Amino acid sequence: MTITQLTLVQIDNYGPWTVTPEPRREMDLQTLQSRLFADVAQFIGSRGGYVFFTRFDNMIAVTNGIDRAAHATLQETIGNRYPVTISLGIDVADTPAAALDGATERLQAAGSAQDEDRTEVLAGTFLDPSETGTEPVHIAHFDVNDATGKYTDQLNEFDSFIHIERSYASLMEYLRTAHGGLSFFVGGDNIIAVLPELSAEAYQAALDHVADDAGVELKVGVGRGQTAHEAGIAAKHALEDCRYEGTTVEFAQPHVPTSDD
Amino acid sequence: MTITQLTLVQIDNYGPWTVTPEPRREMDLQTLQSRLFADVAQFIGSRGGYVFFTRFDNMIAVTNGIDRAAHATLQETIGNRYPVTISLGIDVADTPAAALDGATERLQAAGSAQDEDRTEVLAGTFLDPSETGTEPVHIAHFDVNDATGKYTDQLNEFDSFIHIERSYASLMEYLRTAHGGLSFFVGGDNIIAVLPELSAEAYQAALDHVADDAGVELKVGVGRGQTAHEAGIAAKHALEDCRYEGTTVEFAQPHVPTSDD
Amino acid sequence: MTITQLTLVQIDNYGPWTVTPEPRREMDLQTLQSRLFADVAQFIGSRGGYVFFTRFDNMIAVTNGIDRAAHATLQETIGNRYPVTISLGIDVADTPAAALDGATERLQAAGSAQDEDRTEVLAGTFLDPSETGTEPVHIAHFDVNDATGKYTDQLNEFDSFIHIERSYASLMEYLRTAHGGLSFFVGGDNIIAVLPELSAEAYQAALDHVADDAGVELKVGVGRGQTAHEAGIAAKHALEDCRYEGTTVEFAQPHVPTSDD
Amino acid sequence: MTITQLTLVQIDNYGPWTVTPEPRREMDLQTLQSRLFADVAQFIGSRGGYVFFTRFDNMIAVTNGIDRAAHATLQETIGNRYPVTISLGIDVADTPAAALDGATERLQAAGSAQDEDRTEVLAGTFLDPSETGTEPVHIAHFDVNDATGKYTDQLNEFDSFIHIERSYASLMEYLRTAHGGLSFFVGGDNIIAVLPELSAEAYQAALDHVADDAGVELKVGVGRGQTAHEAGIAAKHALEDCRYEGTTVEFAQPHVPTSDD
Ligand SMILES: Nc1nc2c(ncn2[C@@H]2O[C@H](COP(=O)(O)OP(=O)(O)OP(=O)(O)O)[C@@H](O)[C@H]2O)c(=O)[nH]1
Ligand SMILES: Nc1nc2c(ncn2[C@@H]2O[C@H](COP(=O)(O)OP(=O)(O)OP(=O)(O)O)[C@@H](O)[C@H]2O)c(=O)[nH]1
Ligand SMILES: Nc1nc2c(ncn2[C@@H]2O[C@H](COP(=O)(O)OP(=O)(O)OP(=O)(O)O)[C@@H](O)[C@H]2O)c(=O)[nH]1
Ligand SMILES: Nc1nc2c(ncn2[C@@H]2O[C@H](COP(=O)(O)OP(=O)(O)OP(=O)(O)O)[C@@H](O)[C@H]2O)c(=O)[nH]1
Ligand SMILES: [Ca+2]
Ligand SMILES: [Ca+2]
Ligand SMILES: [Ca+2]
Ligand SMILES: [Ca+2]
Repeated sequence: MTITQLTLVQIDNYGPWTVTPEPRREMDLQTLQSRLFADVAQFIGSRGGYVFFTRFDNMIAVTNGIDRAAHATLQETIGNRYPVTISLGIDVADTPAAALDGATERLQAAGSAQDEDRTEVLAGTFLDPSETGTEPVHIAHFDVNDATGKYTDQLNEFDSFIHIERSYASLMEYLRTAHGGLSFFVGGDNIIAVLPELSAEAYQAALDHVADDAGVELKVGVGRGQTAHEAGIAAKHALEDCRYEGTTVEFAQPHVPTSDD
Repeated sequence: MTITQLTLVQIDNYGPWTVTPEPRREMDLQTLQSRLFADVAQFIGSRGGYVFFTRFDNMIAVTNGIDRAAHATLQETIGNRYPVTISLGIDVADTPAAALDGATERLQAAGSAQDEDRTEVLAGTFLDPSETGTEPVHIAHFDVNDATGKYTDQLNEFDSFIHIERSYASLMEYLRTAHGGLSFFVGGDNIIAVLPELSAEAYQAALDHVADDAGVELKVGVGRGQTAHEAGIAAKHALEDCRYEGTTVEFAQPHVPTSDD
Repeated sequence: MTITQLTLVQIDNYGPWTVTPEPRREMDLQTLQSRLFADVAQFIGSRGGYVFFTRFDNMIAVTNGIDRAAHATLQETIGNRYPVTISLGIDVADTPAAALDGATERLQAAGSAQDEDRTEVLAGTFLDPSETGTEPVHIAHFDVNDATGKYTDQLNEFDSFIHIERSYASLMEYLRTAHGGLSFFVGGDNIIAVLPELSAEAYQAALDHVADDAGVELKVGVGRGQTAHEAGIAAKHALEDCRYEGTTVEFAQPHVPTSDD
Repeated sequence: MTITQLTLVQIDNYGPWTVTPEPRREMDLQTLQSRLFADVAQFIGSRGGYVFFTRFDNMIAVTNGIDRAAHATLQETIGNRYPVTISLGIDVADTPAAALDGATERLQAAGSAQDEDRTEVLAGTFLDPSETGTEPVHIAHFDVNDATGKYTDQLNEFDSFIHIERSYASLMEYLRTAHGGLSFFVGGDNIIAVLPELSAEAYQAALDHVADDAGVELKVGVGRGQTAHEAGIAAKHALEDCRYEGTTVEFAQPHVPTSDD
């Protein structure tokens, strides 16, 4: 069974800041957002977590193994170095979607994202390491087959992107609805999902759905681990197995899921 | 009439690099990609351009006013500071989509994106400043109405994101097909599009399409300028006008488009 | 008694790289160096350590509490994101200078800094947390009295800098020789030193030496802690005490050193 | 004859900010300072200028060819992305020291560096490109002979650094006094100076001074150009000539200075 600790990272009162006193240069906002994400990625990534840029003003992180003190340090360093601050909501649950429900509610309970008095909230429940089973995090790394040959080298870049975007839109809604999973576009032709335990058939059904719905062929490597990084690096190796074997679904290690998960 | 100079920024042979000799830590790839984008955003943005992260390994920039020498300097500085290099394809056309066709073809003609011998291509046609009319760039800045109240403060963050993502998927395909326009999600609830000249009715039709198709209500500010930044900052001010007036389409200045553009 | 774990961070074979195939743009080298330092500062700083830029191609870090696995992660992330790699030598000793001797020797034993085959060395001895007494790290934070009024607002900036530089040159040699301490200019008018345990008289003698030798008046706050950050933040508070009390040497907490340390 | 445009970049009211409301984590200050410097280096460097970190809260830039509008854009982008703002003073003169006098006075005239109401000053005189002769900027790039063999591979890193630091302290004071030149340590074993026109004998005398005074042997390459970058890259090539020829002073091109400059 999976147990996922999720953190919602939310920039405090960001909308009003972007237009005060005048609308700010868009490329400065883009730089600020992407560097803030990069700093969070380094902080969380070097501690075994994964973070996704999502909307940039709201980022979602898988933080199994990262405790309250580390979250507080992250919040402090961003506050020291940026013109904006961040709030952090954290929760733990069996499915990623349920964990995110709890994480989001912690922040919503403290006030609106655009309440100027609600800053640097740090609220949530952290995983007790002693109570977790082994390998509570499952990561699936999806990738488009031959994106270079079919799209990048053939179409103009925007039209390539439309295909990738369609496959992402299709997969994200499917996994959310069918399994309470959360999927994120991570650049190129790659989508990373944090999921409950699923069978090979369930993964194949997801790939089939995207092929039908969006006309894009994906493959997927699946890994599990104590942390998102451990699960994710195993998933990447499994994806390499897909490449070498010519298969579409590979698990990182011997895996006998129970029926109909 | 609009004349747009577009630049395709493509990381050379990036796919193979990400898995050589072993798959690399995902959070390091995320950091690399987002910082590379931030550096390009600063370089191009401080010269009046706009760049969008798109797929991160392929980024699309509006570069009216930025010449070949500046492109060469950008290419050199990235090569000096990153473990990867970039190729640049540039072209000019009346519609953004046609300009991107040409920009992409410059790179495709030089070899595959995953050809390890095809590095640091710099190929294209640059705008002759003396031949451009006034204000050749049109930028539309779209924004979701009350995203904070309807989504961010109500749903879990992933479900908020699904709504934003749907509105983006819907708008991007519509503007591409109907007008040869290119639209980009820029974080939060914002979409920025580079477009040919369009009437207020054409913009309203786009908003109506997204409302019907994705169930999300947008407003839009439209600006024009010598550069993307000039057009874009005017668009942001027009968007503020929407906020103050409670309207859904505002142009930055007196604008009487000819019928059915 | 103090016990300091020091890490030498050395860019591998950096000199030849800067001129291959041609000398590289200096501002790109400056950007690379300062961002590499910033990344190391975030990594080590968020784990309680301190790192100093020193010569940028060789940086010195106080790493009490940071283990081998974290050092390996640092090395990996730099290798993944920069066009250069780093080697790390680590050692532990009673005085900072002795710890640095050992840390440096680990790298020298593995080959020359400009040996192109000597890359990503990770060699050293790490502190066993269970064997350390309490508060093994001592940090002194030195600051020029009224640097703004005497220099910044009076002289041209280079001449201000000459005074600061003289005070640094004088203090660094004094503390190295008299106490085996290592001092680092950290910007502005601030010098931070890692030192063995010293009496108030010993600190006053150092200030007197700099006043005589370089004509610059300093004050100093001294802290101790389990980590450099704990000691350093205590030192900063002690320095604030100097400001409020008008004194020149303050210890962070009741401190009765034995004679002539 | 040389004509140098110098810019003083000063963080506004930085001292008080570092300790408000409490002293901030030193590694966050280090990260902020070095990234701010890196951003300024990219901005100015990609426009042909050079900037030196100096004290980090005050940075000195050679900005021939960079106009008021570009300075304003730099100031705006820093203000948009950092928790601090910068002021800029600019002046032009025959010697670097005289230009810096004027640049500094512009800021001093506007108020103290720690006056909380004095923010984002942009004041100064800019070079009129039409009035400059050819190659008004002279850059000298100094380097320690065999620093790797004599120091880095032999001594502990701090003791290596002491030698480099001594050579810098000696050279900076000499060039300032003898020629109104400004020299900056740029990492490794490198010092870059901006100078008036000097003969080979004058350069040799500077090297001899440092050898006598600090016991460190330097070589130097000298270049001239329209911008600091042009002069500096020429100086780097001249320094490579020193390496290949085994000489100590090389000019980038045929150069017959008038007597006793
Ligand atoms: N974020 C991320 N992106 C990746 C990774 N690996 C590849 N990519 C991206 O995916 C793009 C396409 O690379 P590949 O998937 O190797 O190429 P392909 O043409 O689709 O070939 P196959 O997947 O082997 O069929 C690259 O340009 C990268 O942007 C990864 O591990 N993480
Ligand atoms: N990239 C970018 N994002 C912006 C900009 N302005 C706002 N945002 C984002 O949009 C989010 C929502 O802010 P707003 O649009 O002001 O808030 P709202 O609740 O939708 O309210 P209204 O748009 O006024 O109805 C913010 O958190 C930002 O992420 C902008 O100029 N550029
Ligand atoms: N690295 C670092 N630099 C600091 C810190 N505090 C101040 N500075 C620097 O020191 C400079 C001078 O600030 P202060 O020391 O507060 O000012 P001062 O005029 O010398 O006044 P007093 O020290 O109070 O006599 C600032 O511009 C900063 O660059 C700190 O904690 N760390
Ligand atoms: N900022 C900067 N630093 C450099 C440059 N070239 C070399 N360095 C630094 O200088 C250090 C020593 O490199 P070298 O000067 O090549 O080595 P060396 O052992 O002194 O050998 P020689 O100078 O050839 O006698 C390197 O580690 C770099 O930090 C440069 O162009 N700019
Ligand atoms: Ca693929
Ligand atoms: Ca909105
Ligand atoms: Ca001071
Ligand atoms: Ca050298």
